[in-house]
Amino acid sequence: MKIALLTIGDEILAGSTLNTNVHFLSKHLTDAGYLVCEHRIVSDGAEPLKRALDELFATCDYIISTGGLGPTVDDITRHVVADYFGMGFKKSELVYQDLLARYGSSLDSLEDQATLPERAKILPNTMGTAPGLWFDEGGKVLVLLPGVPSQMEAIFTSFCLPTLINHCPLEEKLFSLSLYFFHINENQVDPFIRELKSRYPAIDFGIYPSYGFLGIKLSAIARDDSSLAAPANEILKKFQAYFYSDTSPNLARALQEKMVKKGLKLGLAESCTGGAFAARLTAIADASQYFMGSVVSYSNHVKESVLGVESLAKHGAVSEETVIEMADGARKLMECDYAISISGIAGPTGGTKDKPVGTIWAAIASKEGTRAMLVPARPHFSRAQMVSYTIDWLMGELLSTIN
Amino acid sequence: MKIALLTIGDEILAGSTLNTNVHFLSKHLTDAGYLVCEHRIVSDGAEPLKRALDELFATCDYIISTGGLGPTVDDITRHVVADYFGMGFKKSELVYQDLLARYGSSLDSLEDQATLPERAKILPNTMGTAPGLWFDEGGKVLVLLPGVPSQMEAIFTSFCLPTLINHCPLEEKLFSLSLYFFHINENQVDPFIRELKSRYPAIDFGIYPSYGFLGIKLSAIARDDSSLAAPANEILKKFQAYFYSDTSPNLARALQEKMVKKGLKLGLAESCTGGAFAARLTAIADASQYFMGSVVSYSNHVKESVLGVESLAKHGAVSEETVIEMADGARKLMECDYAISISGIAGPTGGTKDKPVGTIWAAIASKEGTRAMLVPARPHFSRAQMVSYTIDWLMGELLSTIN
Repeated sequence: MKIALLTIGDEILAGSTLNTNVHFLSKHLTDAGYLVCEHRIVSDGAEPLKRALDELFATCDYIISTGGLGPTVDDITRHVVADYFGMGFKKSELVYQDLLARYGSSLDSLEDQATLPERAKILPNTMGTAPGLWFDEGGKVLVLLPGVPSQMEAIFTSFCLPTLINHCPLEEKLFSLSLYFFHINENQVDPFIRELKSRYPAIDFGIYPSYGFLGIKLSAIARDDSSLAAPANEILKKFQAYFYSDTSPNLARALQEKMVKKGLKLGLAESCTGGAFAARLTAIADASQYFMGSVVSYSNHVKESVLGVESLAKHGAVSEETVIEMADGARKLMECDYAISISGIAGPTGGTKDKPVGTIWAAIASKEGTRAMLVPARPHFSRAQMVSYTIDWLMGELLSTIN
Repeated sequence: MKIALLTIGDEILAGSTLNTNVHFLSKHLTDAGYLVCEHRIVSDGAEPLKRALDELFATCDYIISTGGLGPTVDDITRHVVADYFGMGFKKSELVYQDLLARYGSSLDSLEDQATLPERAKILPNTMGTAPGLWFDEGGKVLVLLPGVPSQMEAIFTSFCLPTLINHCPLEEKLFSLSLYFFHINENQVDPFIRELKSRYPAIDFGIYPSYGFLGIKLSAIARDDSSLAAPANEILKKFQAYFYSDTSPNLARALQEKMVKKGLKLGLAESCTGGAFAARLTAIADASQYFMGSVVSYSNHVKESVLGVESLAKHGAVSEETVIEMADGARKLMECDYAISISGIAGPTGGTKDKPVGTIWAAIASKEGTRAMLVPARPHFSRAQMVSYTIDWLMGELLSTIN
């Protein structure tokens, strides 16, 4: 049983709008055990839409489409689909009365939005005007959902997914499991995964490298997830020293869990990350349980007057001495168990011959002492990538330090 | 001349990864004047890929594909495409020597990554191992780019787009121009834009409201951008008081330009934004010319001990009194002309009856005094949206304050 996702919208093809709808639908369908076999985004217009339906139905049983259901002149999806399946329109009194109650008679498009293809099942839209539509014609199912994300998500969750589960219960479904590792790269795991694949041919293995961490995903179509345990355990055993989570790639989340469990407090002293390090930590709910704060000492004056750094004149802002003093200062000022400091030349400008763009010093202070490290960042990274890389790398260091 | 974008990747179909590559490519191709007619995302595997190539080449002249070029076992794109066009492989000594110089001989996949389809033109990858490949076979062009966004973007910008422009130059292209305004909403500009549209029928006008600002985009398919000047000037004249940029919607950039010009310094005291406010400001190059730093006082202890806040016991962390003390404290501590403070209940939890989620207090301190404001944020916003909204709103306030 395969599902294709179809998006109708010129604004997506022009790059004006990021297509988050297919991401949402893919994630929720996959979580429910269904297999999404294709995404297709086509232009507003009868011809591209009909061609997409023909081609997709040749290999898929279900198509879920988003977009083109609104009241304006460029919204033609309903009409093209009714024509495709050879059906007329009729006014739905239920939809009409609901729209009247919510929007009043002043809404010009009331009649139009309540006039729907005659054999389509209606999936109510409680947040907007265009209902979702479920077509089941000759063994092929096509679902039309509006393109506004909040409306699409509400209709999908409350009506479309329950109808799908009822219409097509799964005997076997897609089970998957992800393992996240730090301080390891894809070349180190690839030979082992290739060998595993030969011994577990029914399991799909994917390797997903990212900044500072690596994900390995195992998946299989089965009745339950039991077949994943053995290969997952082999991977865990082989790379135990680098493993940090089987629930989320987010190193900050793993760190928070560990620090809260140990009752430890963390503070930061940031220079080149400019607040992005703290923002990463505080993006996770309940970060206040362990995160005290950050001194974003972007100017040298703040490094000296707030953090008490004394090495600037002698060693410069990007130096081992300065990050050690920053971490010590932050730990003392905010009274925390651990403090991390970071100062570097994030670029694009500001590099010198001795300290090129990408030179980043960081330090971790604790009651055991303070140690500085030169972060293995790469000079061609964007600032955002460099920040991600450095944060992930420091998190890995800290996670392996706290036992 | 039509271009289709093809993405190869199960992780996107499973909803694990958001497909930002097609968004980037669509935007840059559209800006260059090309028409993107379809996006298609298919599973890793020979069959889906070959079928997509057949179907897309039936209606398009160019396909740009991303993903599946890496060295690991699940990366099969190169092989499937070589087979599709009926060509063998040969080792590129140029690519091999380049990889050797950058990665050393320890990289296992060196030989593999340098062995490429024999008739493909190589688009160098200076940031990773897999080069882009340009196939021109029987009047159909297929370009393969790696899936890692930073590598894909670099190859596209430096090699793929220039090759495309050379291969298929455009006589007329899409020209556009955007104007950015704060403290104004779409209802205030819509009647004027409709009237303009009737007088300039060849120009497309778009209104893009966002958090704290509004963009108006003018575009036209033409030989040059001369037709945009007259309507743009009419818009500027009408809404001059709200205008802040014709280059970037980024209010932070506009603020930086103004503060640097006036020789003013800014500091922050953040609570609910958790560093994201500073991160936004420091994401702009040379922010250190005016930005001193931020005290991310996530814990009450830091608010009191670092910023000298005294009102917490009496008024709570989210209150007019506290943000005024935070701003005053930050301005004094970091010795700056202006300080902004912010403290609120960003959610999803932590709201009370008196102070529901979305209650955000902010203050601006200067030598003229300190004033607090209740930010008009919305409770259903995500934390990221709330931060964006608040930052943009405060920036607008500050921009209209500094004359």
